[in-house]
Amino acid sequence: MIGIDDEKFIRGKIPMTKQEIRILTLAKAQIDSDSIVVDVGAGTGSITVEAARLAKNGKVFAVERNLEAIDLIKQNIEKFSVDNVEIICAEAPDALKTLPTLDAAIIGGSGGRLEKILDIIHTKLKIGGKIVINAITIQTAATALAYFRANNIKYDAFQVQITRLKKIRAYDMNQVLNPIWIVTAEKI
Amino acid sequence: MIGIDDEKFIRGKIPMTKQEIRILTLAKAQIDSDSIVVDVGAGTGSITVEAARLAKNGKVFAVERNLEAIDLIKQNIEKFSVDNVEIICAEAPDALKTLPTLDAAIIGGSGGRLEKILDIIHTKLKIGGKIVINAITIQTAATALAYFRANNIKYDAFQVQITRLKKIRAYDMNQVLNPIWIVTAEKI
Amino acid sequence: MIGIDDEKFIRGKIPMTKQEIRILTLAKAQIDSDSIVVDVGAGTGSITVEAARLAKNGKVFAVERNLEAIDLIKQNIEKFSVDNVEIICAEAPDALKTLPTLDAAIIGGSGGRLEKILDIIHTKLKIGGKIVINAITIQTAATALAYFRANNIKYDAFQVQITRLKKIRAYDMNQVLNPIWIVTAEKI
Amino acid sequence: MIGIDDEKFIRGKIPMTKQEIRILTLAKAQIDSDSIVVDVGAGTGSITVEAARLAKNGKVFAVERNLEAIDLIKQNIEKFSVDNVEIICAEAPDALKTLPTLDAAIIGGSGGRLEKILDIIHTKLKIGGKIVINAITIQTAATALAYFRANNIKYDAFQVQITRLKKIRAYDMNQVLNPIWIVTAEKI
Repeated sequence: MIGIDDEKFIRGKIPMTKQEIRILTLAKAQIDSDSIVVDVGAGTGSITVEAARLAKNGKVFAVERNLEAIDLIKQNIEKFSVDNVEIICAEAPDALKTLPTLDAAIIGGSGGRLEKILDIIHTKLKIGGKIVINAITIQTAATALAYFRANNIKYDAFQVQITRLKKIRAYDMNQVLNPIWIVTAEKI
Repeated sequence: MIGIDDEKFIRGKIPMTKQEIRILTLAKAQIDSDSIVVDVGAGTGSITVEAARLAKNGKVFAVERNLEAIDLIKQNIEKFSVDNVEIICAEAPDALKTLPTLDAAIIGGSGGRLEKILDIIHTKLKIGGKIVINAITIQTAATALAYFRANNIKYDAFQVQITRLKKIRAYDMNQVLNPIWIVTAEKI
Repeated sequence: MIGIDDEKFIRGKIPMTKQEIRILTLAKAQIDSDSIVVDVGAGTGSITVEAARLAKNGKVFAVERNLEAIDLIKQNIEKFSVDNVEIICAEAPDALKTLPTLDAAIIGGSGGRLEKILDIIHTKLKIGGKIVINAITIQTAATALAYFRANNIKYDAFQVQITRLKKIRAYDMNQVLNPIWIVTAEKI
Repeated sequence: MIGIDDEKFIRGKIPMTKQEIRILTLAKAQIDSDSIVVDVGAGTGSITVEAARLAKNGKVFAVERNLEAIDLIKQNIEKFSVDNVEIICAEAPDALKTLPTLDAAIIGGSGGRLEKILDIIHTKLKIGGKIVINAITIQTAATALAYFRANNIKYDAFQVQITRLKKIRAYDMNQVLNPIWIVTAEKI
């Protein structure tokens, strides 16, 4: 099961991947019970926690450079009692070099170094493994597409736009989330 | 794992719930390995097949009145080798009366009888069970919201708008899917 | 010319119709240089000001019940030097009874009395005149559609979703606006 | 007045800028009654016709390379009785070199040569003149943004997503249009 309610996570000032986006991202990553997964730019750890519950006999590496975020990841790991997460408190792409062979990589943040991150991730990935990028800007989305094209890597991509309906008295008010591109590549 | 590629399903002229919508719908239904699920308006059976794979020790009832759709459901059940589906070739809400207690109900089509369907579904649902409605029209979405409000049933709702990017030479062309409202209610 | 930049208006805590929505709304209202227009729920007066510039030999009635909004309308009328606006500080639908024959009616806010407002507006409208409703909730949109259907009034409707791209260093960040339904009816 | 109904244009197999996008594009171009305008990639001529009606004492140059489109432009010019359009049947950017000083340039199609087109357009534009680009792909949108950034040209940009509601019996069915980016720059 995926799709923990947003409010159940301990949150700080760090932006969190919202439930609907998290569901789509985790599903596209095709995580199995014994998968080895990396969550690059793990933020509050919401993706990390859900990935760890899917890969219950596997492992999730949460890569994050922000100390406040690291603290939130630790709190959320504890809250949801997942014991198969290793936090790597360092900057990608350098932090990725020591990773083992991966089944899936989820990239929520790239700090402007997406191509270098993808270079390493792609070498670490098993055949059939998935890379799922959440791009919040047109530049990041375009960079991801250009990278996969240039390297002849098979990909699919979509933009998702969620508008939540919030019950306020007699009305359900539109509460829109920022659109995100989800770009998924497969190592072949 | 959820999110079978659309092209893997055997398809006819019956509209199929697209992968991204299917992922969100299945996740919101919170289907467990032993869940009892009904898929109302099962169409090509794409939701049925994925629900049956999640509820591998449970059961999925696929309710559908259209004979062409029934045939597609049978073909897809066979293609994906799921053996825990019971097809009910009849019209909702009548067809729902014989259902056992349910963990989750997914309503993809209601033939204009959404309220009567919800009346029966709600009585069949376990405490904590989920109803997930995919509404493709504003009228159906508004009816669902009004029903849950009138009956004091807890719900959340969002509109989802997916735009796929289709690789055509040097460009990724926008290929938009029709927006859908996903309304989820929980029996409390 | 339509489409004054949002920042050029004097704004308070009252929500303002954003430029892109204002453009679409004004265009759908088909305002001519001698049109008589009513702006129901005029808010900050952004629609009123732009309508008054289009109907430069006509007149715009700005109906608004909120005193803070009235003050903003006055300030914006003065800032943009339009002299063909009459502010009606009262509640619709009652405030509409004294209006003359109208070429166009724009309804930005209805205070939950949309049907009664439409009853009066429709009697005031010239043959060929336009009603343009900005609905920010699914309930208001559904009510508008149901009203025009029930009264055999010709309408077209669309939902518009704008995502502004805001330049922040090397990126253009998505800044989404809440989706709005624009429902346009014509008196025939 | 802008916003001619789509069905009123004579259409062929050439894709036409839809009414809602046309309205936004024309408004952003800030066309005056004596404006000199170019419509690059004029297609069926829907933008050309509406621009010519706005610039009734000015002129619109419709640049288009496709002969079938040229024929549609001619038919639509005739149908809407506009006499201030000059069709340039040639390929941009070369076709743009002979243009006079411009108040506004609308770019609906660039044939993969957007940067070279912008180079010429920008030199032709008056101070305060507007360039409005309709980008239907993420690559074209990203190229436009990168160009304006690299050349320190002031711009604003948004993505617009229109979903029309089509009345079918008791329902209004969502009929979504492909999302488009509208990027507007001003020569300063």
